[in-house]
Amino acid sequence: MPRVVVDVMLKPEILDPQGQAVANALPRLGVSDVASVRIGRRIEIEFAGEPDLDQAREIADKLLANPVIEDFTVRLVEADETAGARS
Amino acid sequence: MPRVVVDVMLKPEILDPQGQAVANALPRLGVSDVASVRIGRRIEIEFAGEPDLDQAREIADKLLANPVIEDFTVRLVEADETAGARS
Amino acid sequence: MPRVVVDVMLKPEILDPQGQAVANALPRLGVSDVASVRIGRRIEIEFAGEPDLDQAREIADKLLANPVIEDFTVRLVEADETAGARS
Amino acid sequence: MPRVVVDVMLKPEILDPQGQAVANALPRLGVSDVASVRIGRRIEIEFAGEPDLDQAREIADKLLANPVIEDFTVRLVEADETAGARS
Repeated sequence: MPRVVVDVMLKPEILDPQGQAVANALPRLGVSDVASVRIGRRIEIEFAGEPDLDQAREIADKLLANPVIEDFTVRLVEADETAGARS
Repeated sequence: MPRVVVDVMLKPEILDPQGQAVANALPRLGVSDVASVRIGRRIEIEFAGEPDLDQAREIADKLLANPVIEDFTVRLVEADETAGARS
Repeated sequence: MPRVVVDVMLKPEILDPQGQAVANALPRLGVSDVASVRIGRRIEIEFAGEPDLDQAREIADKLLANPVIEDFTVRLVEADETAGARS
Repeated sequence: MPRVVVDVMLKPEILDPQGQAVANALPRLGVSDVASVRIGRRIEIEFAGEPDLDQAREIADKLLANPVIEDFTVRLVEADETAGARS
């Protein structure tokens, strides 16, 4: 069953200190060629029936993201992007 | 330039109260056919040079996810999935 | 007006990779004597009338924390702990 | 051993959709007199030696909060505010 995925990220011009913390911690793992790390939210919405992208967009706009500081995308995802491919 | 995206979600058997809160708030938006909402994290990693999935996987395992309670996936994403399609 | 504050932290035995990332980033700031960093959530609940700790506890238990992996505390806080003392 | 607690909240004028989602979900729990819910982060920093508030403030400013959209407070907390009083 496909589900709707909403990805919410801080707008590019907004500083992300948590991502910065991860980036700054990388040299201790021996990783030196990462230019940036940004941390956002991923929300998976499962509909009882047919997934409804318009409704998902309204949910994102009202309850999941703050449009002043965040961008979001809404898309259909086949089950295997989510559960299937997980480590 | 492609970037690496790490999606981190609570394991399916772990309760997600924040997702539950969103699900419970939906009837007030007139949305009644959502079966579940799960909230995780999406991390975008940009490499200075060639994206390195193995390194990204190690970063995820050490600094982004707790494998006891969370699953993660690591994948290459073309720029247009992220910035391009945003509302 | 007092408000209710709910603090939610991962249980001590649950690994916190985001806190770990911050801890690992500290040497680059010249900070070397931090033993651990743990990142949780702080929720401020304002009641229209008298703050109700029992209700706040139920809200925390149902919508804010996952008791299997997280601990929470609920307490009354005078306004000056929150807005007043901020930088 | 006292620890340093950093509380990070979105500035009051910044919309908090996650808090809004919790607030909107409350009527289903039978709770009707909550005026607002705001969700932030609580970070507990343990020092190996004496807690250092100035260092904690610098850590918060660089790695924990985004001063453009968030306020933070830094304070010493006795152990019993944290672990002791937990449910």
